[in-house]
Amino acid sequence: MPTVTFLPSFRKAVVDREGTLMEAALNAGINLNVVCGGQGKCGKCVMFVKSGVAEFDRDQFGRFFSPEELESGACLACQTRVIDDASVFVPESSHIQEQKILIETLGLETEFHPSVWKYPLVLNPPSLDDPSPDLTRLLWGIEKKGGPREGKIYAPLEVIRSIPRVLRDSGWKITATVALVPGGYRLIDVEKGDTSSRLYGVAVDLGTTTVVVFIRSLVDGRVVGVASNYNKQISCGEDILSRVNYARKGGLAKLQSLAAESINTAITRAANQAGVDREDIHEVVIAGNTIMTHILMGIDPAYMIEEPYVPVVRRYLTAAASRVGLEVKENAGLFIFPAVSDFIGGDIVADVLASGMSESSEVSLLIDIGTNFEVVLGNRDWMFSCAGAAGPALEGGEVLFGMRANPGAIEQITLDLETLTPAYRTINHEKPRGICGSGLIDLLAELLRACVIDRTGRINTVIAHPRIRLGPHFPEFVVAWKEETGIGKDIVITENDIKNLIMSKASILAACITLMNEAGISRNGIDRIYFTGAFGNYLSKENAIIIGLIPEVPLERIRTIGNGAIEGANIALVNRKKRKQLDEIARTMAYIELNATPSFMDEYTRGCFLPHTDLSLFPVVEKMLDECRIHRG
Amino acid sequence: MPTVTFLPSFRKAVVDREGTLMEAALNAGINLNVVCGGQGKCGKCVMFVKSGVAEFDRDQFGRFFSPEELESGACLACQTRVIDDASVFVPESSHIQEQKILIETLGLETEFHPSVWKYPLVLNPPSLDDPSPDLTRLLWGIEKKGGPREGKIYAPLEVIRSIPRVLRDSGWKITATVALVPGGYRLIDVEKGDTSSRLYGVAVDLGTTTVVVFIRSLVDGRVVGVASNYNKQISCGEDILSRVNYARKGGLAKLQSLAAESINTAITRAANQAGVDREDIHEVVIAGNTIMTHILMGIDPAYMIEEPYVPVVRRYLTAAASRVGLEVKENAGLFIFPAVSDFIGGDIVADVLASGMSESSEVSLLIDIGTNFEVVLGNRDWMFSCAGAAGPALEGGEVLFGMRANPGAIEQITLDLETLTPAYRTINHEKPRGICGSGLIDLLAELLRACVIDRTGRINTVIAHPRIRLGPHFPEFVVAWKEETGIGKDIVITENDIKNLIMSKASILAACITLMNEAGISRNGIDRIYFTGAFGNYLSKENAIIIGLIPEVPLERIRTIGNGAIEGANIALVNRKKRKQLDEIARTMAYIELNATPSFMDEYTRGCFLPHTDLSLFPVVEKMLDECRIHRG
Repeated sequence: MPTVTFLPSFRKAVVDREGTLMEAALNAGINLNVVCGGQGKCGKCVMFVKSGVAEFDRDQFGRFFSPEELESGACLACQTRVIDDASVFVPESSHIQEQKILIETLGLETEFHPSVWKYPLVLNPPSLDDPSPDLTRLLWGIEKKGGPREGKIYAPLEVIRSIPRVLRDSGWKITATVALVPGGYRLIDVEKGDTSSRLYGVAVDLGTTTVVVFIRSLVDGRVVGVASNYNKQISCGEDILSRVNYARKGGLAKLQSLAAESINTAITRAANQAGVDREDIHEVVIAGNTIMTHILMGIDPAYMIEEPYVPVVRRYLTAAASRVGLEVKENAGLFIFPAVSDFIGGDIVADVLASGMSESSEVSLLIDIGTNFEVVLGNRDWMFSCAGAAGPALEGGEVLFGMRANPGAIEQITLDLETLTPAYRTINHEKPRGICGSGLIDLLAELLRACVIDRTGRINTVIAHPRIRLGPHFPEFVVAWKEETGIGKDIVITENDIKNLIMSKASILAACITLMNEAGISRNGIDRIYFTGAFGNYLSKENAIIIGLIPEVPLERIRTIGNGAIEGANIALVNRKKRKQLDEIARTMAYIELNATPSFMDEYTRGCFLPHTDLSLFPVVEKMLDECRIHRG
Repeated sequence: MPTVTFLPSFRKAVVDREGTLMEAALNAGINLNVVCGGQGKCGKCVMFVKSGVAEFDRDQFGRFFSPEELESGACLACQTRVIDDASVFVPESSHIQEQKILIETLGLETEFHPSVWKYPLVLNPPSLDDPSPDLTRLLWGIEKKGGPREGKIYAPLEVIRSIPRVLRDSGWKITATVALVPGGYRLIDVEKGDTSSRLYGVAVDLGTTTVVVFIRSLVDGRVVGVASNYNKQISCGEDILSRVNYARKGGLAKLQSLAAESINTAITRAANQAGVDREDIHEVVIAGNTIMTHILMGIDPAYMIEEPYVPVVRRYLTAAASRVGLEVKENAGLFIFPAVSDFIGGDIVADVLASGMSESSEVSLLIDIGTNFEVVLGNRDWMFSCAGAAGPALEGGEVLFGMRANPGAIEQITLDLETLTPAYRTINHEKPRGICGSGLIDLLAELLRACVIDRTGRINTVIAHPRIRLGPHFPEFVVAWKEETGIGKDIVITENDIKNLIMSKASILAACITLMNEAGISRNGIDRIYFTGAFGNYLSKENAIIIGLIPEVPLERIRTIGNGAIEGANIALVNRKKRKQLDEIARTMAYIELNATPSFMDEYTRGCFLPHTDLSLFPVVEKMLDECRIHRG
């Protein structure tokens, strides 16, 4: 098999003859940016063949490159077949970029009711007067310490096998670990000596893009380590659809192991940070979207993306963590959040748990915005849920200077209504390189208040101001002059960008209104709005209402719960009573298919205004806009 | 590594340099007769080195052979180290002999309540109107067919993974298999099409010497196949103690795999006979003594044979059958009978279940006689149990012409009280080669009735009769003249044989009386005596009382239940309600340690008479003996 050497890192990997450079990069552990999943569509996985034999079809894919680039050996890694040993240069831009990942949590208070316990025991050695068997002796010891009744604990074979040696080698001083499992308790480990302080669990948010991990003591619930990293599956496709397509082409096992590896990497980081041995991690709780959890469990996700869109499994899953390749204690249990449907996964169930809305009589509206959005409306008695694609605008796609929440992104912005001079804050306080979602929402709201744009999103080019000008294709507003930016160009927002942003926000608003109509709830009937997801956390609530991203409610009713998935996973990790509610929550959440709801398209159309066609739904915004108009004349 | 060729079979096996011929024979699959477990003590594993290099210490072990035999290359396989390729002859006598194994059963009636079910299902394919997940769809199908509720069935990961493919490839016509497991139900398999008629279970009696297997349909409980064979562990030691010693020397894994192999061989035979595919066997239920089940489960049995004699586990065990190497359906469950102590194993619990004594208000005495004996006394409210070594006399050991129940063994015998001419029946109607247990008991009783021996077992050499004579060491009685035997020698019983037999029977009687004393029950309080074990089945009840093997009760109260272990395993296989009682039965059976009970030795001494020192305990026998004495003058 030929060997490929990747420059400038000099990483090497072998690959099948006729295998692609993308496969070789995967083998070499290079996190390649393959947005389209290797279909030759996105043109992101650029490499330059420096020597050796690798075939690239320029006729079909040459369009991504200039003649000079082709001259230098440019190719798409996903479309280049390795025939013999080769040496290839990988530009920085072909790697997945580091991104700001949301790991802060609200630290929601929850009672501590763990699902795993350690019992340090000093047992009497057997004698002729007390000849009870090793296992019975051990289980009685647990019972005497206040643990579950002897007969209620199932002991698996591998643990039973270890018992006689451990008991005798330790001088009958041991620590037994017991876990709550479906149907009862399970003896998961017996160790020499008193190890009772070394008992940890892991909560995981397994996202399409990122993985977030919390390590908590299961002795007292304390958070001891936190880490996050990219989901390494990104090298097989950036969005979830391209992952499923990759799985369909025989890539399920690869995606499965990348998911496990991503979690393992984060666990290792968090464990090192906390000084925790991974062998002392006795439980893993994971919340993720339905496709991610299917893939992690090695279950074929193919049928979820074709009509009639059914997952294989919706209920919560348990297994030995080692069964899916997680590198923790051998017998550690794995708990996967239940899902509602293909599109409402365990991450949203975790959001609901974290919000507390499923335990309250108040009516809450929960909105999770990412590449896709999910909305849940309801209370402890009933819940409706729906999901949709917001389009990439709010994440910085389809916007000329849009970008993800990476260093240099403008994340907050205000305009001086007199001078139209922007004041902004960038991530890491670097020179601006573009604008991320929360900055775009601010910008839209500020441009509207300043009457630079009207309610349809059109730029008022009549205003004579150096920042308002005609760009090559569309009218545009200059947010930052090239001298102040980190990219040597003016950063602008165009009328076309604004149109795309309005379409995105209209989808989300229409989803909210569709669920409200379904439930017969008006905006006044909403007691609480919860924003969750990376996006929601940096969002200005006021501006979100001004542009009509969400229904107008008094601002004090709006809360952000940060990364609801990791919050929910944390709660389920340390509170078995809450964990028990999850299947019930998932069952209660009726799923509304927006595409099958005729009024959704009408609501979408009505929402393609700032904030909405019908201003009576946004009375406070209407008043504010009137004042602005009067002010500007 | 050197290769050893075994003649006359020409089987070959490699073995480590300096490994023994015994190890090579094991590797070659030769069932060698190694009574002492390879300690060079029993002299049974004779081989003749024909060529090649193998070292045998004649100084130490030459005593087993004549000079002529040594000249021909005679050696003990367990004490001969292979240095280089060698060729060795294995005489027939060094193989384990085929033996009459008890597989007939009483066919005890029991209600049919299986623990595994198949549900043939025709499911509606998912649609936009009915988009429930694959697993939910399947489990609802089971529920609609009268199976367990959807939420009550645990689905393991490997089954979930298989579901989407099987459902679609089969056109949504599948068969789901569900098993009852501790804590609930488990989905153990999903197959294409309707396979509901192919559902079988296996009941196993895992004995120290033999393995008996029943295959039963779990659709209707019918027995479809029966087979038995030797426990292949015999090549590592004939008695249980030598097995444990073999395990202690690092041989546990070997013994474990031999146990599994022994069961697999029997299952294969029974399955072939029944035309059953082993892949259709969904459950295995095993009753065995505590050491055998520990070894099969891969649990160290070492601590059971040293003070204070504790097993690792006493409760029933469950696991995947494949975990211990049983070659049945991959997800098939394994159920191992619970034990009471080291010495009262799952086989005795199975005896008790089969006898029905644990459900009756009548007081029963259950006696299982093999190499060791076990006695249980009690009813549904209380039970006492004990165990001991009867010595090998009743199995043909320590008796000059004693033998196991192999072809040619005299198994029944009567004497003409006038002429002293024996009339006997041999196994397979072959010419007699020796006398097995039931024949020896008959002989003892008949010699006593004929006044050839007195109540101490002494032969009355005053009687002038050609069959009564002085042998080389002891007085003896000729049972068969050499012309009528298959061995070219007179078959006799000596006074020493009779002494050994009396000591054996005295142990068993003393055990019965010790339990009766413990419970405050006289012989009149015994409503039922059950004989179980291979031995009991061919036994004359009357003669057992005459010699004082068991307490005197009216004959109609005595029943034999054949192989109680396989009977009990069969019941537990097809009747989950009975299976559920097992742990309770095992807990109810108080274990009396005979060696710690001072009165036991007294009872033993008092029992070393025919039938007993105190004839008032045997009034009917006393009367009979009086009549005989009068008759003979």
